[in-house]
Amino acid sequence: MYNGLQTLQTPCLLLDKITFLHNVSRMEQHLAHFNIPLRPHLKTVKSLTAASYLLANKQAGCTVSTLKEAETFAAEGYTNITYAVGITEDKLQRVLALINQGVELTILLDSMEQAMFVSRFCTEYDCQIDCLIELDCDGHRAGLTPKNKEIVTIATILDNQGLYKGLLTHAGGAYTCNTQAQLIQFAEKERLAVITAASLLEEAGLSTQVLSIGSTPTALSTQNLAGITEVRAGVYPFFDLVMAGIGVCDIEDIALTVLTRVTGVKRSENKLFIDAGWMALSRDRGTHNQTLDCGYGLVCDQHGTLIPGLSVTKTNQEHGIIECEPGFALPDLKHGDLLRILPNHACATAAQHSGYHVLSHDDIEFWPRFSGW
Amino acid sequence: MYNGLQTLQTPCLLLDKITFLHNVSRMEQHLAHFNIPLRPHLKTVKSLTAASYLLANKQAGCTVSTLKEAETFAAEGYTNITYAVGITEDKLQRVLALINQGVELTILLDSMEQAMFVSRFCTEYDCQIDCLIELDCDGHRAGLTPKNKEIVTIATILDNQGLYKGLLTHAGGAYTCNTQAQLIQFAEKERLAVITAASLLEEAGLSTQVLSIGSTPTALSTQNLAGITEVRAGVYPFFDLVMAGIGVCDIEDIALTVLTRVTGVKRSENKLFIDAGWMALSRDRGTHNQTLDCGYGLVCDQHGTLIPGLSVTKTNQEHGIIECEPGFALPDLKHGDLLRILPNHACATAAQHSGYHVLSHDDIEFWPRFSGW
Repeated sequence: MYNGLQTLQTPCLLLDKITFLHNVSRMEQHLAHFNIPLRPHLKTVKSLTAASYLLANKQAGCTVSTLKEAETFAAEGYTNITYAVGITEDKLQRVLALINQGVELTILLDSMEQAMFVSRFCTEYDCQIDCLIELDCDGHRAGLTPKNKEIVTIATILDNQGLYKGLLTHAGGAYTCNTQAQLIQFAEKERLAVITAASLLEEAGLSTQVLSIGSTPTALSTQNLAGITEVRAGVYPFFDLVMAGIGVCDIEDIALTVLTRVTGVKRSENKLFIDAGWMALSRDRGTHNQTLDCGYGLVCDQHGTLIPGLSVTKTNQEHGIIECEPGFALPDLKHGDLLRILPNHACATAAQHSGYHVLSHDDIEFWPRFSGW
Repeated sequence: MYNGLQTLQTPCLLLDKITFLHNVSRMEQHLAHFNIPLRPHLKTVKSLTAASYLLANKQAGCTVSTLKEAETFAAEGYTNITYAVGITEDKLQRVLALINQGVELTILLDSMEQAMFVSRFCTEYDCQIDCLIELDCDGHRAGLTPKNKEIVTIATILDNQGLYKGLLTHAGGAYTCNTQAQLIQFAEKERLAVITAASLLEEAGLSTQVLSIGSTPTALSTQNLAGITEVRAGVYPFFDLVMAGIGVCDIEDIALTVLTRVTGVKRSENKLFIDAGWMALSRDRGTHNQTLDCGYGLVCDQHGTLIPGLSVTKTNQEHGIIECEPGFALPDLKHGDLLRILPNHACATAAQHSGYHVLSHDDIEFWPRFSGW
């Protein structure tokens, strides 16, 4: 199986296609119960080929984190894009260029200042930019708390020009969960945040078209999507050790690994050296505060089977050091042997690479990635 | 000054050319006292334009961390390259291709296994690959301890085919120093490691042509290079907060920053949001164990002047959160204002970007970077 691995230059990124497709289908099936559309967040995959498996067609809605993503997917023919990071004024010209190409591009904001400059811009350029107001459902990041009266003021400014479209929130705090009960609670927090704000807006005579929530952990855990119009999620096609630590997937569900070769064996110190350092794995230490701290990643053999007791404990730019937990024996590996490292955070690890080597039956495809802003 | 900053899309990487040139000249002048050549490590800059300022000419020696770097610099005409990461057998075909192009490429190894496969390969392909043996001077990473008898065995295997060229070590442990005395001690450890091993080899009748040591902190601190033939260093043209924490530069010497815009102000929480998250800053937390933990970076105004009391305390993919230390007031910044973030680790931060926007008098140049393996 996959003899082709031997021909790959290491380090490189591997994607197990069967697991990837299984993960995609799991999320789709979960949301199908609620009959609520998924708007995949393409910041994780950043690949046209990968995106084609996440989106039913090019009119299906997607989410992006940069204008570069919006432009790249628009150039491929995708027409319904939510740019889900708070807008700055200097970025509006690129937003307008996309709208003028026929893209239904929606932007995000959470302040009067932003509402004012978007409104001024639309007047000046005689254009229409659909806006979502960002809500803070868990104190995690940006956004306004759901009962903040500023929401009505902002929506009113926007609505006067037909720019107000809806509300969006993301329960980033769900990444600290480790029980199903907590996840369900965070999912409900997300839902209640947009429902609450939408009610207040309705009382003020403002109609909310889009009620958008989501993160991979909450989307997979939610038991109630009443009133919601769409769910966003990004990392679910790949999963990673952080998601396994939260409990929304098993380690076997992680579709992404970094292929590496053993570059040294220090048996006396119970250490292996590999040619994957932080440049290939990223510096992400997302499992640091979880019950199982995985260092810079757990270790699989070349077939993707976990080798118990090993983790990448240190990284330099192009060196990784694998150490053995007490009670486990260093496996009988030698110079040049292939290993696969499971990533803490798939978004960060994938971003270090120019593409995915996709393991598909006995074939290896290559799906290019892009980066930048 | 630099009105052009307003035209840049954020986040992006800025390089202050005057500071960069000053840093390059500082290292060159320091080593000129000893009359020992510098072999710059190009893994930090990964840019043809930047490299042209580090290398006197295309025959001058340089160091790389990947074959992609070796190939890219060779294609530009550089002919004297040390690939300073332990070799694996599968990489030898690419090494040979470079040698056949006329590049004087030197590889690194630290085991019998490697010596054997290099030797076999050179016999099979009737070629000559110059080898350095890696020494471990401080228990930091790979390499053999200087008195390990295996060094003589390895050198003998190589020497039989004329492949043994010399010894190399890197005091990665110097990154934990914070006094000048410690730095001088680590620099001397590096020197003694190669001198000791070279003496043992000489006793065995083996002549060592290259005695290569270096890291930015030790190279700038050394007071004795007797017996050494070259010094390597990588991060010195840029510097970063880790280097400032070690004490080998001041914060004002850091040539590299990430330009970002304020995307939100939460004055009640003493927080600013910026459009530089970990994708732009990297996840590197290199200052975590230093006296001054700088979070994901310290904050400067758009002119590059440090704003005391601020640091980037949290990062998501495209969001950074700046918080204010107790005792400091959040400066009067508003949505869209430009800031510059000083990196913890220049190699990691630069690697997140496709190039440098180089501030040069009142002009902004662009120097592309490359990445990959």
